[in-house]
Amino acid sequence: MSQSNEEFISVDEVLKKLPPEDYIKVKNVLFGSETSELPLTEKAASLAKSFDFDLVSCKFNCEEEELRSPRIVRVGLFQNEIPLSPASPISKQREAVHKLAKEAIETAAAGGVNILCFQEAWNMPFAFCTKEKLPWTEYAEPAEDGPTTQFLSELSRIHNMVIVSNILERDEKHGDTIWNTAVIIDNHGDYLGKHRKNHIPRIGDFNESNYYFEGNTGHPVFETEFGRIAVNICFGRHHPLNWMMFGINGAEIVFNPSATIGELSEPMWGIEARCNAIANSYFTCAINRVGTEEFPNEFCSGDKKPAHKDFGQFYGSSYVAAPNGSRSPGLSRVKNGLLIAELDLNLCRQMKDKWCFPMTRRLDMYAESFSEAVKHDFEPQIVRK
Amino acid sequence: MSQSNEEFISVDEVLKKLPPEDYIKVKNVLFGSETSELPLTEKAASLAKSFDFDLVSCKFNCEEEELRSPRIVRVGLFQNEIPLSPASPISKQREAVHKLAKEAIETAAAGGVNILCFQEAWNMPFAFCTKEKLPWTEYAEPAEDGPTTQFLSELSRIHNMVIVSNILERDEKHGDTIWNTAVIIDNHGDYLGKHRKNHIPRIGDFNESNYYFEGNTGHPVFETEFGRIAVNICFGRHHPLNWMMFGINGAEIVFNPSATIGELSEPMWGIEARCNAIANSYFTCAINRVGTEEFPNEFCSGDKKPAHKDFGQFYGSSYVAAPNGSRSPGLSRVKNGLLIAELDLNLCRQMKDKWCFPMTRRLDMYAESFSEAVKHDFEPQIVRK
Repeated sequence: MSQSNEEFISVDEVLKKLPPEDYIKVKNVLFGSETSELPLTEKAASLAKSFDFDLVSCKFNCEEEELRSPRIVRVGLFQNEIPLSPASPISKQREAVHKLAKEAIETAAAGGVNILCFQEAWNMPFAFCTKEKLPWTEYAEPAEDGPTTQFLSELSRIHNMVIVSNILERDEKHGDTIWNTAVIIDNHGDYLGKHRKNHIPRIGDFNESNYYFEGNTGHPVFETEFGRIAVNICFGRHHPLNWMMFGINGAEIVFNPSATIGELSEPMWGIEARCNAIANSYFTCAINRVGTEEFPNEFCSGDKKPAHKDFGQFYGSSYVAAPNGSRSPGLSRVKNGLLIAELDLNLCRQMKDKWCFPMTRRLDMYAESFSEAVKHDFEPQIVRK
Repeated sequence: MSQSNEEFISVDEVLKKLPPEDYIKVKNVLFGSETSELPLTEKAASLAKSFDFDLVSCKFNCEEEELRSPRIVRVGLFQNEIPLSPASPISKQREAVHKLAKEAIETAAAGGVNILCFQEAWNMPFAFCTKEKLPWTEYAEPAEDGPTTQFLSELSRIHNMVIVSNILERDEKHGDTIWNTAVIIDNHGDYLGKHRKNHIPRIGDFNESNYYFEGNTGHPVFETEFGRIAVNICFGRHHPLNWMMFGINGAEIVFNPSATIGELSEPMWGIEARCNAIANSYFTCAINRVGTEEFPNEFCSGDKKPAHKDFGQFYGSSYVAAPNGSRSPGLSRVKNGLLIAELDLNLCRQMKDKWCFPMTRRLDMYAESFSEAVKHDFEPQIVRK
């Protein structure tokens, strides 16, 4: 199923071929101040090896304060290709991807992860390109107590881990509507809440608007025992306003579970989650799937090309970005992997104090300008001779 | 005066040391789809050589349309170190930097530039770190008809070139107030309008708020014969709302004249103007000065370090970013340079149509959310157990 380009594992790996001095120079400019090593347990390493996925870890640096203790949290980002072909029976596919998730969670637990996030629509193939309803809509399930949430809740409780699970939601109480929804399960296995994707793409194969609509859950920030978190789902990462509103509501870590392919977005991938970590003085965690998914039937993509059965390679490259402009190494472009990053959440307020972005933002001015801009009789401010 | 680190000219140059295949791979991921070569006249090359600055050029690609002709425009970005020490008499410094600007304009004209932009406060040292008023405030001059605008108007008319000139403005009609202002001179040498910096930094040596205040000119877009342009001045590049409002008003090219140093911002430099070009479907042009400026008297920076007379090396690295995620090569980190990029402005609307960012932006929702967020009794949307 996978059409991995094994020659090009990641930008990070290629840059290491430079002479060491040159490597350090460009790395500092491209990726910001160095992160530190984060040693993990033997158990984590051996589990990752036995399950055949990469394990990468790092630690972000932060100044100590006198009055606040460090607020250390370990986040885990898991990226994966779907374990079974989309042609397999749905129940088998779900079983296989649940098994994979369990392996990821156990490894994350051995690595001391407090909050784990999976990729977008992690428990299914990214089938929206097909525009077919059955069987794909069968994956949709209630956010609060569907089979996937139940499955994760148990593991979450056992491992004392917050889990962010972005799935296709079936809202039975509101006309059987379908949503693209991030479910937050707290570290006691309890459903904490959900967030529905705010911005829906209509671009090439990512035409998801015939499956679900723009979310109606606002910009919730979830207060967990390990920090205040939020979820900006996939296409929302192109929207600075979406990122910003989570920040205004107090987020310290914003996860960006995604599914995106190289031809379309790879040059933007390393930029957007990072730029918005800086602009909003919080950490961002961008997670993309890997592999190439081939569907049983042909579909067309509005790109003038012939009908086809896959829409290219998901390029992985998941990473964590800090509010000070630095970032973690990226996971592989081609292989399943778990990235564990240790953060001190105190860095968020330190960066707000240093850069003063919230205070220099003039939000009142923009609230007014935007309110004008959406009126039918809006006249743009254009200066003509 | 200059403490150039001549070993590290630019990220682009270092990456070229990679094996060619690897270079192409990482370049495509890091910098987006390849730009084309843009051959310039012999005259442009020989002028740049005689004036001792780098000359770099490229062309961004764009699809042809049936109904609209290509809307080709050449932008020029000039970065420079100040030609005379800040200890020299102000009139001599101004004379020297005007001479340098004339050289840049003549070279740009030979390279077919339609719109040229200088760096922030280009006609003076970036003296705001000193917190001293005289002699630096003597550089402030009326935007419409001050000596610098008059000087540029003449050259602008001769060379049929729009010039963006970001200077210290003295507003004599409003209590002799001082502003950080971009002046737009059209290609007939006429003053078209001005924009005042919206977001003022208070960070380290960039504490400019005792010289001038937050701008009161909104987000004007200037309709020139070569396209609709706007200016996001320096610190405004950290503010996604500032970028966005220029886009809402119709900008196709947004210049970002800047002055910034490596220790503080270099890892953010390549990200911010580019991320916002993508998010707003327009071209951005980021221009930073080069060299190290040493002032006559010591000053402190609120960074616990001893008093000093300079605030580090401006790292140049000016570049152009396109709405499709690609970018130009960067100018040098250490040397004066002129970057000429040929754009087809049709790419802006093509990217709006492709990505649908304006249509999926839900601006009405954010206008409402922001209006709530600025109220004193605002309650963030936080989900607790």
